[in-house]
Amino acid sequence: MRVLGIDPGIATVGFSILNYQNNRFLLERCGVITTPAHTRLASRLNRIYEDTGELIRLFSPDAVSVEELFFDRNITTGIAVAHGRGAVLLACERAGVPIYEYTPMQVKQAVTGYGKAEKHQVMDMVKRLCGLKDIPKPDDAADAVALAICHARSSGSLLTNRGDQTSCSTI
Amino acid sequence: MRVLGIDPGIATVGFSILNYQNNRFLLERCGVITTPAHTRLASRLNRIYEDTGELIRLFSPDAVSVEELFFDRNITTGIAVAHGRGAVLLACERAGVPIYEYTPMQVKQAVTGYGKAEKHQVMDMVKRLCGLKDIPKPDDAADAVALAICHARSSGSLLTNRGDQTSCSTI
Repeated sequence: MRVLGIDPGIATVGFSILNYQNNRFLLERCGVITTPAHTRLASRLNRIYEDTGELIRLFSPDAVSVEELFFDRNITTGIAVAHGRGAVLLACERAGVPIYEYTPMQVKQAVTGYGKAEKHQVMDMVKRLCGLKDIPKPDDAADAVALAICHARSSGSLLTNRGDQTSCSTI
Repeated sequence: MRVLGIDPGIATVGFSILNYQNNRFLLERCGVITTPAHTRLASRLNRIYEDTGELIRLFSPDAVSVEELFFDRNITTGIAVAHGRGAVLLACERAGVPIYEYTPMQVKQAVTGYGKAEKHQVMDMVKRLCGLKDIPKPDDAADAVALAICHARSSGSLLTNRGDQTSCSTI
């Protein structure tokens, strides 16, 4: 199973391509889509839409795992991020890729086994599960890997062994 | 000048096609795009994206006038509407239609001459300016007509005469 993980945003969208087979994680790619500040919102949305579509064409994921949005503080940021998330969902929907949505708590639970884990604990588990030397940078990319792991583990393919028997590399 | 007015939403998107020439308004079409409740968000976004694209193909507007979003109460609704607004902006951007955004206060100012006008005052002016028998229904459609009027009046083509010397009909 190949999962496209997406951490939505408007200035920065984290993405990951995670292959999960035979109890092994193979991180094929992760990074960020960035859109220039001080440009028109519609132009930024189009960049996100096109780059998401390009990732789908390049990697043909079986599913996309996207973070749900919760905002209780900065509503202005929330509105902008929701626009960006809409562009991601549209690109996936129009490409026919099944979409799965997870809350931050579900991601923490799936990656660390504890829904209220600290961010650094999630990041450490991402590194360990994928057998990486370092935690992926920037944070949005690492978050996107966590989202992909969450879906892989939540879709009926639960790992029976963590750490030692999983392997991962960055292509 | 032909303007596509859009009142963004997720369950209901108001739209209008307003032709403005020689100090006359001609309302060619107005209505709503609706998406079924209890269906996947991505599917609803796709409906909005496709229907907006269809309006553009059918009417070839010179500009689109979209309401800006402000939310100070229901953040959950705000997030959903922002997703839908993203789908509208993407459809317009990808079709190459110039996008203009107006606040509710700008719309009220342009339509009634008073930025703090009541809703019924705006609706009455929409009806009067377009020479309609009744205020368009539902409200989202009428709001979309107000948005189109706002752009027509804000784009350097200010009416010198209101009411008597403007005409409008619904096709």
